[in-house]
Amino acid sequence: MLEDKNTSKTELSDLGEFALIDYLTKTIKPKNNSTLLGIGDDSAMVKHGENPSLISTDLLIEGIHFDLSYMPLKHLGYKAIIVNLSDIYAMNAYPEQILVSIAVSNRFSLEALDEIYKGIQLACKNYNVDLIGGDTSTSVTGLIISVSVLGTGPKNKIVKRKGAKENDLLVVSGDLGGAFVGLQVLEREKAVFKVNPNSQPDLSKYSYCVERQLKPEARKDIIDLLHELKIVPTSMIDISDGLSSEVLHLSKASEVGFHLFEEKIPIDPVVSLTCEEFKLNPLTAALNGGEDYELLFTIHQNSYDKIKNHPYLTIIGHATDIKNGCKIISGLGQQIELTAQGWESFSKK
Amino acid sequence: MLEDKNTSKTELSDLGEFALIDYLTKTIKPKNNSTLLGIGDDSAMVKHGENPSLISTDLLIEGIHFDLSYMPLKHLGYKAIIVNLSDIYAMNAYPEQILVSIAVSNRFSLEALDEIYKGIQLACKNYNVDLIGGDTSTSVTGLIISVSVLGTGPKNKIVKRKGAKENDLLVVSGDLGGAFVGLQVLEREKAVFKVNPNSQPDLSKYSYCVERQLKPEARKDIIDLLHELKIVPTSMIDISDGLSSEVLHLSKASEVGFHLFEEKIPIDPVVSLTCEEFKLNPLTAALNGGEDYELLFTIHQNSYDKIKNHPYLTIIGHATDIKNGCKIISGLGQQIELTAQGWESFSKK
Repeated sequence: MLEDKNTSKTELSDLGEFALIDYLTKTIKPKNNSTLLGIGDDSAMVKHGENPSLISTDLLIEGIHFDLSYMPLKHLGYKAIIVNLSDIYAMNAYPEQILVSIAVSNRFSLEALDEIYKGIQLACKNYNVDLIGGDTSTSVTGLIISVSVLGTGPKNKIVKRKGAKENDLLVVSGDLGGAFVGLQVLEREKAVFKVNPNSQPDLSKYSYCVERQLKPEARKDIIDLLHELKIVPTSMIDISDGLSSEVLHLSKASEVGFHLFEEKIPIDPVVSLTCEEFKLNPLTAALNGGEDYELLFTIHQNSYDKIKNHPYLTIIGHATDIKNGCKIISGLGQQIELTAQGWESFSKK
Repeated sequence: MLEDKNTSKTELSDLGEFALIDYLTKTIKPKNNSTLLGIGDDSAMVKHGENPSLISTDLLIEGIHFDLSYMPLKHLGYKAIIVNLSDIYAMNAYPEQILVSIAVSNRFSLEALDEIYKGIQLACKNYNVDLIGGDTSTSVTGLIISVSVLGTGPKNKIVKRKGAKENDLLVVSGDLGGAFVGLQVLEREKAVFKVNPNSQPDLSKYSYCVERQLKPEARKDIIDLLHELKIVPTSMIDISDGLSSEVLHLSKASEVGFHLFEEKIPIDPVVSLTCEEFKLNPLTAALNGGEDYELLFTIHQNSYDKIKNHPYLTIIGHATDIKNGCKIISGLGQQIELTAQGWESFSKK
């Protein structure tokens, strides 16, 4: 399908670990002032001045978090960085450095690793982040990517999951469900391909959803916008596991309930149409789909005028007394309790 | 052999990801002043004040970096932290925070994860380090542990690989080769066990070597000592891949050569005896074995009096003009060129 058909192959065993690291990192030069020491020592060194350092980490495993039969390696490298950057933006802060560890089995060539690094370096360029360290190793089977990200921001502007107050407005950026629906399209095409390897899939009408899945972006622009509008959210989280799960996280940390309004939840028309084709409820895709990497946050009601009608932001509900729980209210006034689906990676399938 | 035979087993799938994280981290409370925000948000937050932050990361994979048939899970958790702390000590600085990502397949129970966390928490306690974040996931096969560590120290005392000057003394802490020889003992016992599962190995005479392999320590005490003695090394690295490989790293970064003296290389008598039994050259174990996590550093000659005859430190050579290369000089005056063996994890076996 979309797999890299690069024919030139250099075996990693011909290089050895140190030469491989030199090769992959030779073009990497730190750009941020806060990066004091990059790749090549026992540890890297950063200094965020008077501001605290934020740090987050994610582990991505082939066969669990991604499927190389439809995920091009360059996109995978890009996405591995994006999902980490998103965690720093979700604190209303800016990522500045990343460390990337990669383990590959001997079925991967140097050219394959090169593709992954191209994606990593493109994400670094687009988001102004320095690659400052990591680890390179073999794996028994498959590909493993572990990314750690460092960021910073003024302490009084950093936003946690805790902090939402009753009557605060609940706001989401962009639209939801696209990444999940994109995954359904790709899984279907993979199944078709298995039956007929000569089939030429036409994914053009699904391109929005497929791109949301294969090449997501982190919402740096929303953090820029919040700074411009002089809004500091009272709580914030990024949507990696699905709206439902993230609302429950904010609820638990902030000790408030939430009321969401079904008709306010932003879903792209392409996502709705594709859901229809797949006999899926678009609301389910938005609530439980995950991997949208949009930002979900609460703001005080007096910020309403600043964001109303903003094309990138939608007010989808408000915080209530914790006793009311977290509910979604349908157009007909029905109240449905939100349940934590999340990424139940340990569930028996 | 040494495997955990715990009979009580709770399947991870009965818990789900969020409950599992809550369970594993419920007793973890940050202790360092520099830890502003620990586990439970999109990112953790630290502040090292006026000092820079050091960061390093390592990826450990079952079947590549460890073998659970002789590595008890608690020791594995402990060692996974130690190897990372060692990278910060190797900068003449102190680790203060770690992030741990773990991926396990469904053959692991909650009790197994608990054992790993016990080892992690023991290392945190012994080295005064806070566990502030991470990621928990399933793997397709086997166990994967990714650790990132944050540390700090005054900028003018941080020591890089670069900085050694001609005539500086080359110093190593502790003794070398033990971890490698311990691995040979364990591999032999594993082979015996495969043939006769009822065999009861007596490892007592190898306990020093086996402990060096299974439960290494990081040399915090050496960093304390250097501070006490008011010595700032001119260059430093930790010995993870073997003395030979690390000397070459210092040489490359500092642009000097090194002369090492064979008879000065510290090898414990138990290591020598065990090498004899295994028909190994003890010098080879010291040069190429790795995993000793001792510190290798250079100091100016005028610090000689401060460290001579110190029981934990051995002067094994000195820096020379880079043109002389890196050589080990035998008792008979033979010069042997050092070669980078390292952990050639990509080599064909």
